[in-house]
Amino acid sequence: MNNQNSHNFRNAGQNPDFKSKKYPPAQNTEPRLYRPQKKSPKSHESHRAPVRIIPLGGLNEIGKNMTVFECSNDMFILDCGLAFPDAEMPGVDIVIPDFSYVIHHKDKLRGIVITHGHEDHIGGLAYLLKKVNAPVYGSAMTIGLIKHKLEEHGILNKVPLHVMDARKTMKMGCMTAEFIKVNHSIPGSMGVIIYTPAGVLVHTGDFKVDFSPVDGERIDLGYFGALGNKGVLALMADSTNAERPGYTPSESKVGASFEKLFARAGNRRIIIATFSSNIHRVQQIINMAAKTKRKVAVLGRSMVNVIATALELGYLEVPKNIIIDIETIDQYAPEQLVLITTGSQGEPMSALTRMAMHDHNKINITPLDFIILSATPIPGNEKHVTKVVNELLKSGAEVIYESMYDVHVSGHACQEELKLMLALTRPKFFIPMHGEYKHLVKHRGLALEMGIPKENILLSSIGNVIETDGNTMQIVGQVPAGRTLVDGLGVGDVGSIVLRDRKHLSEDGLIIIIIGIQKNTNEIVAGPDIVSRGFVYVREAEDMMVQAKLLMKHVLNGCSYAELREWASLKTKLRDKMSEFIFEQTKRSPMILPIIMEI
Amino acid sequence: MNNQNSHNFRNAGQNPDFKSKKYPPAQNTEPRLYRPQKKSPKSHESHRAPVRIIPLGGLNEIGKNMTVFECSNDMFILDCGLAFPDAEMPGVDIVIPDFSYVIHHKDKLRGIVITHGHEDHIGGLAYLLKKVNAPVYGSAMTIGLIKHKLEEHGILNKVPLHVMDARKTMKMGCMTAEFIKVNHSIPGSMGVIIYTPAGVLVHTGDFKVDFSPVDGERIDLGYFGALGNKGVLALMADSTNAERPGYTPSESKVGASFEKLFARAGNRRIIIATFSSNIHRVQQIINMAAKTKRKVAVLGRSMVNVIATALELGYLEVPKNIIIDIETIDQYAPEQLVLITTGSQGEPMSALTRMAMHDHNKINITPLDFIILSATPIPGNEKHVTKVVNELLKSGAEVIYESMYDVHVSGHACQEELKLMLALTRPKFFIPMHGEYKHLVKHRGLALEMGIPKENILLSSIGNVIETDGNTMQIVGQVPAGRTLVDGLGVGDVGSIVLRDRKHLSEDGLIIIIIGIQKNTNEIVAGPDIVSRGFVYVREAEDMMVQAKLLMKHVLNGCSYAELREWASLKTKLRDKMSEFIFEQTKRSPMILPIIMEI
Repeated sequence: MNNQNSHNFRNAGQNPDFKSKKYPPAQNTEPRLYRPQKKSPKSHESHRAPVRIIPLGGLNEIGKNMTVFECSNDMFILDCGLAFPDAEMPGVDIVIPDFSYVIHHKDKLRGIVITHGHEDHIGGLAYLLKKVNAPVYGSAMTIGLIKHKLEEHGILNKVPLHVMDARKTMKMGCMTAEFIKVNHSIPGSMGVIIYTPAGVLVHTGDFKVDFSPVDGERIDLGYFGALGNKGVLALMADSTNAERPGYTPSESKVGASFEKLFARAGNRRIIIATFSSNIHRVQQIINMAAKTKRKVAVLGRSMVNVIATALELGYLEVPKNIIIDIETIDQYAPEQLVLITTGSQGEPMSALTRMAMHDHNKINITPLDFIILSATPIPGNEKHVTKVVNELLKSGAEVIYESMYDVHVSGHACQEELKLMLALTRPKFFIPMHGEYKHLVKHRGLALEMGIPKENILLSSIGNVIETDGNTMQIVGQVPAGRTLVDGLGVGDVGSIVLRDRKHLSEDGLIIIIIGIQKNTNEIVAGPDIVSRGFVYVREAEDMMVQAKLLMKHVLNGCSYAELREWASLKTKLRDKMSEFIFEQTKRSPMILPIIMEI
Repeated sequence: MNNQNSHNFRNAGQNPDFKSKKYPPAQNTEPRLYRPQKKSPKSHESHRAPVRIIPLGGLNEIGKNMTVFECSNDMFILDCGLAFPDAEMPGVDIVIPDFSYVIHHKDKLRGIVITHGHEDHIGGLAYLLKKVNAPVYGSAMTIGLIKHKLEEHGILNKVPLHVMDARKTMKMGCMTAEFIKVNHSIPGSMGVIIYTPAGVLVHTGDFKVDFSPVDGERIDLGYFGALGNKGVLALMADSTNAERPGYTPSESKVGASFEKLFARAGNRRIIIATFSSNIHRVQQIINMAAKTKRKVAVLGRSMVNVIATALELGYLEVPKNIIIDIETIDQYAPEQLVLITTGSQGEPMSALTRMAMHDHNKINITPLDFIILSATPIPGNEKHVTKVVNELLKSGAEVIYESMYDVHVSGHACQEELKLMLALTRPKFFIPMHGEYKHLVKHRGLALEMGIPKENILLSSIGNVIETDGNTMQIVGQVPAGRTLVDGLGVGDVGSIVLRDRKHLSEDGLIIIIIGIQKNTNEIVAGPDIVSRGFVYVREAEDMMVQAKLLMKHVLNGCSYAELREWASLKTKLRDKMSEFIFEQTKRSPMILPIIMEI
């Protein structure tokens, strides 16, 4: 029996013959730590079944993280994020993973485990949950943020959401997932331990090692170590900062910088832009505001939402009466105010950008403003951020935006922390996750330094089916994987042809040639008319447009009766002649669109 | 008499009354250094005339550097560069300054002085020289590169080009310009001293202070110091690196890094990508190749051209038989080769990018390649560079691209060097040049630290007319200034409307509605037909397109005879209805283009 479905899922198990020949039965290890192992109802079968790891996003790319774990007849998903479109995807709002493999096997889906509440881990969830049903597990903060999303999509009621603390387990058929506390730039971040018949898998999620986290909740290094002592079959770890030597500083370091900068601000109003999800950053701002007797107002839709969620769930500790309504800020002097705002990435519609462009209805930037950009530009955003900085400076404000001021730290582990994770978990196999190819390569380099044999390190790609029986691990097949573009309400209706046309239109614009041809006589009864957009400022190119029209007339006059009936070839002829003429005149290649109307 | 020409040149001199009232006569200083002052033929008049500095590019922006100096009836231009288009200018090839002020006053133009041969200083020259005639002055390297450009534009024969060494002077009517040696990332880089009736102006051009330059030609610090001792009226200095503390390392440091990396490469082929104009970098690569007995092949059109020019002019010292033809590289083992290539910025059409994408007809990247990116991504190019790095790594090559390897140094002065320049020249007035607003602000900060009073520092903008009589300096007016977009052969025919249309088309595509209306009867004899491009993959949206067509029919059926005659309002009606329908269905706003044909 060969599994030949339409999804190009090749040789990836479900074939008992194939399986029993290739893979020895899994060893009867004791996979679970500190807990008695529960018998799976299908324990005999599942003990023999290999485990499959199928990344559907987050490998060879930054964003849209999503991994499928499969064993026997059970499947669960780890994270379901989005990515932001790049310059090659004009007009696209967001990019989500190709879900077709999951949808095709939705009967096997036992649950969705979310490591933390960042967009690149939860942003695809609502789209997936419109296609499949499964319980969703996450920390209180993660579930709080997911609730907002599902509500926006009108599907909150149909999805069972489960708040799980660290060291709590989730049964996924023959596999069990367990949360483990990590540090990151959003509260409630978790790694995941996966107990499988083949052995214990550890996925760090996004993580860093913070010895002095703002909330006091340190990454559970001891538990990672205990897992290593028991034996970890495979580690999947965050590669985002694998290029950076050393350690990522503690979030607390930013607090120390704020202390100095609040002093420097003197009697000016302080405006701080940061990521809305960085609640610990917000906590430190509030602490400094309390210390310096300033009130705090919050700007930007996502900042307001996330802070509300964090307050509601107890992730933020706020002294009484310190947060004020933005409408009341005129009642305070500049030295009595701190504004926390979105826009640290120079996003065109964000509150900070609107302030910079004198387009904010409540905030007017003046020399009495002291502005801190508490963030580093994400690659691709540098020019946006620079533009905002320039405009804020032109209003006379002082702007703190350079890395030397230590107003931002990364949420991801640098090389020494990645080595620490490898040293604690001592995995047999290692799969670097969450990064572009260059990050995965660097992370592999670190693992090699730590003594993991090269053949036990897998540089994988999305769609790869990675299979392990506890003894070996290899890529055994492919499933469909890629990107689904979301544009407005359309999910997947913008593909490569549409993008190619958009790109073409954006570079040289278009020229439309319209002709009306009489049905029976093949007489040209209207046109040729020429309309252009995005090509040239027509008033300054009238001559050329007149010539172009004459050329089209000439081409049509040269056509026989038969040629005027063959519309496809007539269009090609008109297009080619026009294209040639325009290129000769301008060295440009606009899209040429001949339209023939039958009268 | 008021100077009211069409160019909005307000109150900027040429009005004797205005001038004599506001400005005392210039002091009879001894402006020229180490040289007897020659009498100007109009010395009496010109001694009374104030000097005007008019930046036309390079302020509040990176690129298209150009400054006009005017005094009495004389004018000259310093640099004439281009800028590269940003994401808001799709399809645009290059951006050059608005030349209209210069063209309008071309009878006063005495010459064009070019500090060095980078595109942002020479790239606009050919376009300007098609409109005005003037001798062009530069170092041998600069003039060599300009020759290529003028040849490409077919105007080499009509332009008088003058090769000038450092400390050579150029008479510009009542002003005299003199070159002064600086260090930068291209050989033959000069600053310019301008001796005017009002006093001595110093323009650094792009510069850094390199105590151990590859060619041994150190920046002429002594001469800058001597100028300071005699008295400098105003300093205009490069602000590019004004945000960076410390000193820019010497270009020689890169040579030391190459030494280590060549050893690390072992028996692999070495490929180094860098800026084609960085001849000193190329020299160091050739030196290392000679030392390690490797042959050098050169790839990429601009790299081949610039190296040819540098060789011809003696800027490169190359041992015999070390440079080989790219066609012959198959005759050598990997360890016998170094390839020098363009593409260090990930430019899509460059040699390195084509290698990375397996699209180069001569070079195939394998694990036997050791690749060095000897450059830092220019802001905006980060993603391109990352893509190239990822692809090269996927072919199994080792790629050295991170800043920690010291394979690149900047060509611009950091903060301590900028202070050194201020300390040597001790100018009365200071105008930070060459930078975005944030850079100018930082540079002002340094000047304040150095004791220049705030009121003597001018943060200017392009188009500002800065006037000085030796005692005061202020902005006295505006001339037209801005950007002229070059797209193919078109210079200036792509403006804001065309760009807006291109942007709109790129984001949501377009929908065309075509109708044929009978001339006399106002009967609809063809259509409505609907054509879309870049909007949606039509095969998957057939229903919506059918509905859209029905909607248009419905609108037309509801129109009275009179309404069908009023095409402008009919088009608006069709556009609005279609727009509303499409937005409701998709939440997208494509360009809607109703076309009515009269039959």
